[in-house]
Amino acid sequence: MLPTKGYAAQSSTSPIAPFSFERREPGTHDVHLEISHCGVCHTDIHMSRDEWGGSLYPMVPGHEIIGTVKQVGSAVTKFVPGDRVGVGCFVDSCRTCPSCNEGLENYCENHFTGTYNSKTRDGKGLNFGGYSNQIVVDERFVLKVSDKIDPAAAAPLLCAGITTYSPLRHWKVGPGKKVGVVGLGGLGHMALKFAHSFGAHVVCFTTSEGKIADAKKLGADEVILSTSPEQMEGATGTFDFILDTVSANHDLNAYLSLLKRDGTMCLVGVPEVPAAVHAFSLVGGRKRLVGSLVGGLPETQEMLDYCAEHGIASDVELIPMGKINEAYARMLKNDVKYRFVIDMATL
Amino acid sequence: MLPTKGYAAQSSTSPIAPFSFERREPGTHDVHLEISHCGVCHTDIHMSRDEWGGSLYPMVPGHEIIGTVKQVGSAVTKFVPGDRVGVGCFVDSCRTCPSCNEGLENYCENHFTGTYNSKTRDGKGLNFGGYSNQIVVDERFVLKVSDKIDPAAAAPLLCAGITTYSPLRHWKVGPGKKVGVVGLGGLGHMALKFAHSFGAHVVCFTTSEGKIADAKKLGADEVILSTSPEQMEGATGTFDFILDTVSANHDLNAYLSLLKRDGTMCLVGVPEVPAAVHAFSLVGGRKRLVGSLVGGLPETQEMLDYCAEHGIASDVELIPMGKINEAYARMLKNDVKYRFVIDMATL
Repeated sequence: MLPTKGYAAQSSTSPIAPFSFERREPGTHDVHLEISHCGVCHTDIHMSRDEWGGSLYPMVPGHEIIGTVKQVGSAVTKFVPGDRVGVGCFVDSCRTCPSCNEGLENYCENHFTGTYNSKTRDGKGLNFGGYSNQIVVDERFVLKVSDKIDPAAAAPLLCAGITTYSPLRHWKVGPGKKVGVVGLGGLGHMALKFAHSFGAHVVCFTTSEGKIADAKKLGADEVILSTSPEQMEGATGTFDFILDTVSANHDLNAYLSLLKRDGTMCLVGVPEVPAAVHAFSLVGGRKRLVGSLVGGLPETQEMLDYCAEHGIASDVELIPMGKINEAYARMLKNDVKYRFVIDMATL
Repeated sequence: MLPTKGYAAQSSTSPIAPFSFERREPGTHDVHLEISHCGVCHTDIHMSRDEWGGSLYPMVPGHEIIGTVKQVGSAVTKFVPGDRVGVGCFVDSCRTCPSCNEGLENYCENHFTGTYNSKTRDGKGLNFGGYSNQIVVDERFVLKVSDKIDPAAAAPLLCAGITTYSPLRHWKVGPGKKVGVVGLGGLGHMALKFAHSFGAHVVCFTTSEGKIADAKKLGADEVILSTSPEQMEGATGTFDFILDTVSANHDLNAYLSLLKRDGTMCLVGVPEVPAAVHAFSLVGGRKRLVGSLVGGLPETQEMLDYCAEHGIASDVELIPMGKINEAYARMLKNDVKYRFVIDMATL
């Protein structure tokens, strides 16, 4: 066993605090990596505070992991020590269902094994995430990260990046399409960068006038203040696709009315309470409300390679491990541009 | 002007009662038809009782109209006196928007003109529906109905038929697909017939054990009692497509969980209150909740021709005009197999 340092929540009400635990020794198919950076996702807050139910404690959060390969098992073929690698939202899946066979492990029909807040595949232990100095993961669930990208700015790509890249690709966002991005946080700022890079006409929806200039810098061709009934009404029936990254409760019908006929609105944020969706909002105009959950391993690798090639990464604020509770408090006030990333050297 | 006999609601609380009014004289592009039958749609109840808001009185309901052409305007090319024809949910549209140009007048971007409970396109008068002995409609909005179909059984095709046919075609229901139909009423029974005819494996969801035998006769390969948690849970993740025809409030999340990855649930019923949709229900499995609203004129004609060719029509109970209020009361108790149709000879 590998004695490991980390930070954990001990209950839904406790702060994130120092925690010592053990990782498994690397097996023949495993990669043992030293974590250099871990992004701080809104999901970390939801899960550590049990806001979605079913949280497992102690919990070491963190699923936007960047590190360097320290050693590899004897059967590992994709990685050698010294490689820069990443680990995202899951570290295992059934590997036999149709979704796994299609490289859509994120939709594993027997449920993927989350990087944290999950039981190990054998049901005997808990998985601990990236708020720690090292991790051991089967090579299938480890991704190559080019040295061209700053490692801190790469960390959020493993969740915020793929969560927005995947639906924008699946729904064929590109030239000639008018695309909305709701919310300008960790996910939203990546969605603006990707949609712009894919050649779409990009519109950012935000509640805050203070974000207009930033949204344009990030790739928005237009910004609509969602608090302005005039601006919202003026956009009625004009969007091909809207990506909704907001995980707070909000009115979906207002955005559905902005879609063209056969337009699609995709949810990637998960509010704690169900949304009130009026059937009229979908029936008139044959519209679609859809969801998307991170991405499979091949697409995540594609996204990381795309980012390296096109100079895309996350805008981050680097924090020491000890500032994690402060970071959570600031995230809840939307006071971050646009992702906190923990510098694991400070652990 | 053409003195016309009909039945109307005078207010949201009044019964449907005899009413005399005038139709316009047929213009050069108009077809003047003598109505033989009119189906009774749940929408007639919603609208005559102002349950969706904005109802216009006096209101002559009825948008499942079958009749015979009595005379045609000088520019009419598609019809001659004596033809059997139908009129559905709308009698005009802007005729210039992209949707109209694509034959999707049902999604007219300047709003179609409803067959009743709508203002005339010039805004000066009200349109009155099919609970009457005659109607005058522009030929573009009139459909040919084969003599091969019983006219009473053809009437519901103009709304219940096309409302279910269109999404089943749009979402490519056919061989190899497992398709659910929620609700066994006017729409549901047509959906079973169409989905079966298209070659899908068809599952009917109903709350009533008494409907199982009928559902199978109508085309269901299986019936699931939606009130049985065991039966519902046993079907988790197995459906390619679910058509939800229920216009009463119900739990959509329970059905979304039955979809496969990338599966689609389509709403064609419109409950009065918004549905509570949990983002998790869509995000996990990249699922789609969509809507569909009747169909365009070319597709409605295609559907009518398909029905004539394949011997498909509605199962109806013929009633005299004077029994309309009784019929509404019975519909609200689901006491009809499966559509009331008014025999207009009784007017």
